[in-house]
Amino acid sequence: MTDLTRDGALKLDAADELAVFRDRIYRPDDDLIYLDGNSLGMLPLATRERMHRLIDEEWGRELVRGWQHWDSLPQDVGDRIGTLIGAAAGQVVVCDSISVNLYKLAAAALEAQPGRKVLVTDTGNFPSDRYVLQGVAERRKGQLRLVPTDPLVGVNPDNVHTYLADDVAMVAFSHVDYRSAAINDVLALTEQAHRAGALVLWDLAHSIGSVPIDLDAIGADFAVGCTYKYLNAGPGAPAFLYVRRDLQDRLANPIQGWWSAADPFDMDAPYTPATGIGRWQTGTPPIPGLVAAEESAGLLAEAGVHRLREKSMRLTQYLIDLTDSWLVPLGFSVASTRDAQRRGGHVVLSHDEAYRISRAAAAVGVVGDARPPNLLRLAPAPLTTSFTEVWEAMGRLRDLVASEAHLALPAARDRVT
Amino acid sequence: MTDLTRDGALKLDAADELAVFRDRIYRPDDDLIYLDGNSLGMLPLATRERMHRLIDEEWGRELVRGWQHWDSLPQDVGDRIGTLIGAAAGQVVVCDSISVNLYKLAAAALEAQPGRKVLVTDTGNFPSDRYVLQGVAERRKGQLRLVPTDPLVGVNPDNVHTYLADDVAMVAFSHVDYRSAAINDVLALTEQAHRAGALVLWDLAHSIGSVPIDLDAIGADFAVGCTYKYLNAGPGAPAFLYVRRDLQDRLANPIQGWWSAADPFDMDAPYTPATGIGRWQTGTPPIPGLVAAEESAGLLAEAGVHRLREKSMRLTQYLIDLTDSWLVPLGFSVASTRDAQRRGGHVVLSHDEAYRISRAAAAVGVVGDARPPNLLRLAPAPLTTSFTEVWEAMGRLRDLVASEAHLALPAARDRVT
Repeated sequence: MTDLTRDGALKLDAADELAVFRDRIYRPDDDLIYLDGNSLGMLPLATRERMHRLIDEEWGRELVRGWQHWDSLPQDVGDRIGTLIGAAAGQVVVCDSISVNLYKLAAAALEAQPGRKVLVTDTGNFPSDRYVLQGVAERRKGQLRLVPTDPLVGVNPDNVHTYLADDVAMVAFSHVDYRSAAINDVLALTEQAHRAGALVLWDLAHSIGSVPIDLDAIGADFAVGCTYKYLNAGPGAPAFLYVRRDLQDRLANPIQGWWSAADPFDMDAPYTPATGIGRWQTGTPPIPGLVAAEESAGLLAEAGVHRLREKSMRLTQYLIDLTDSWLVPLGFSVASTRDAQRRGGHVVLSHDEAYRISRAAAAVGVVGDARPPNLLRLAPAPLTTSFTEVWEAMGRLRDLVASEAHLALPAARDRVT
Repeated sequence: MTDLTRDGALKLDAADELAVFRDRIYRPDDDLIYLDGNSLGMLPLATRERMHRLIDEEWGRELVRGWQHWDSLPQDVGDRIGTLIGAAAGQVVVCDSISVNLYKLAAAALEAQPGRKVLVTDTGNFPSDRYVLQGVAERRKGQLRLVPTDPLVGVNPDNVHTYLADDVAMVAFSHVDYRSAAINDVLALTEQAHRAGALVLWDLAHSIGSVPIDLDAIGADFAVGCTYKYLNAGPGAPAFLYVRRDLQDRLANPIQGWWSAADPFDMDAPYTPATGIGRWQTGTPPIPGLVAAEESAGLLAEAGVHRLREKSMRLTQYLIDLTDSWLVPLGFSVASTRDAQRRGGHVVLSHDEAYRISRAAAAVGVVGDARPPNLLRLAPAPLTTSFTEVWEAMGRLRDLVASEAHLALPAARDRVT
């Protein structure tokens, strides 16, 4: 039986070996409880310092000479991110957005397999993934085949096989569902797709930094992911992509910008693609986001992905326990799975007034977000959130809904992702 | 007859109404003379302050709530950049890299004109432009047709017509040549391409902030450009693209990421492209580069593109005058055109030892760069460079070549772009 007193929360924090990392995060103010790190992660102090140094010392003082060390950042930071997702060095590069990276990989997968014209994803996948894949398929006389999924449960390996056949070039699913936090069975799904002869891409946007994955071990072909959620690299920081080593030189990057070339500075040569993961870059690397990702990924590596996962599961379980005791009587229910092994870094609650509650909660210093039709997402990011914060946040939610304070707000849509 | 004494330089500075802007630029140290702003522009003090504020106050304190004002930045900053390039509001958006933007527009141009399979550019165009266009054409059973150009002169309107026919979907040239600074005749070339029924794209990477253009008036269809050169938005800051208003909704963005959708946050809807310039975005906007571009573009607008151009022409002419007197006797020649009306923001000199001279110059505080086979690029950016700096830089170059100090260096290639 979980101790739901404030003392209970304090005891959990006292026993938390990751609690020390909270002192290394920039704190907006003592009253704010931030449960939206699955959307935009908090600012680590080391990242803040590094970005200031980039501006003042590197851009400001080194000027163009900074490229002597900046130009290796996409692959160096990629390698560091690789350590968080089970990718040996030389298979991850930081570049572009997830949408652009997904486009490059999906187009390359179709091009490399002329007899296979179908891309497969699931109806619950993040909209941008579905949109991009649809665009790629339509423009190549192909098809996007959508596996119907219950967004609260994730992709069901039991029905996926009916969507797989020898016409499928690539299968793309999210590791963790952006709404429900459902964790898909990456091993089973990768094996299923491979049996059908398809390449497999995992979108790690909602898992990196909270739910470990071992890309090399599961035999993934591709992955994409973002650095601004649990990876704490700041608004619009660049995405990353993973291409399994033996595929890197067998496929072609369709957006063959100069940073994908063997030597971007051999300016009189015809286009010769780079060998290795560098081939999958495109244009000039975005340095502020790269240095932020470098620092923040280092902090996550220091905390350790498995320790982060262990704390994350305990935080989300504690949040659910408080929900059951305090919020269910007020019309909430837990929409995420109760199986901690299949639940990612956030918890989704349902309530008919989820939007207004989300807004009213922000007004009392509890920042989460809402998703249609009636879902409230709360992410106690393990690097930055204490048990006491979860206790306090849930208490504020309870008090505001009990007082019906949210009903005074307009029923407007939340724009926050 | 130009007065080539130090007093002469001081007099030119005293008469320079843009000299005050130099006080608004972060200065690495008093001894550095930076003539590489055509590669990476200097750091404006307001941009520095704004980026610090973004990190500490916006990301750090507002966290995800910052998106309430960040989300309009791509189009707001686009409109501000539009004022520098003759584009009325609603036609420019800041997103992705030049390579990705060029890809989107070239692919869209081919898709919209099924009877036209050819893209045209010139042999002297920046490598990434040629590479990307080649990749787009090859993947659509099309062709990249290359107009041969003398890179020191630019595209010749007299021979372009032989490369234009009713099979051409899009013509893409640079406004200013990245090597020689030759300014192409945008009006004549746009008219020629339009007569052949082709769409026209201008790459403004090497002109924005130093050579004005009036995209609306010349009837350009598309433009792309970067913000980290004369626009001073920092290493890897995002690119921009321009799509003429009446084309925006008639063409389709092939990389249909969520930020190109009518409502990115309507997450259950099928893909519906945005109307207007927003359709040409892709993924989550890179906020550090956007706020930098916003501040720096504001500074350029305050200085005024025509005043900047007038000063730029005088600076490059002064640099050429000093070259003729001091450097030609040492084996240099002026490779850029001597016609100031056809010369952009930098000057290219040739010398058999250009690489070693460029490196030796950096060692004495004169930062420019070299380009194969024997070219030295020197960019006295009008916002940040004084006449006295040009005088001092050319004197240091003269002294080091006269002393043969550069011959002590290895003949290695310069990696700086």
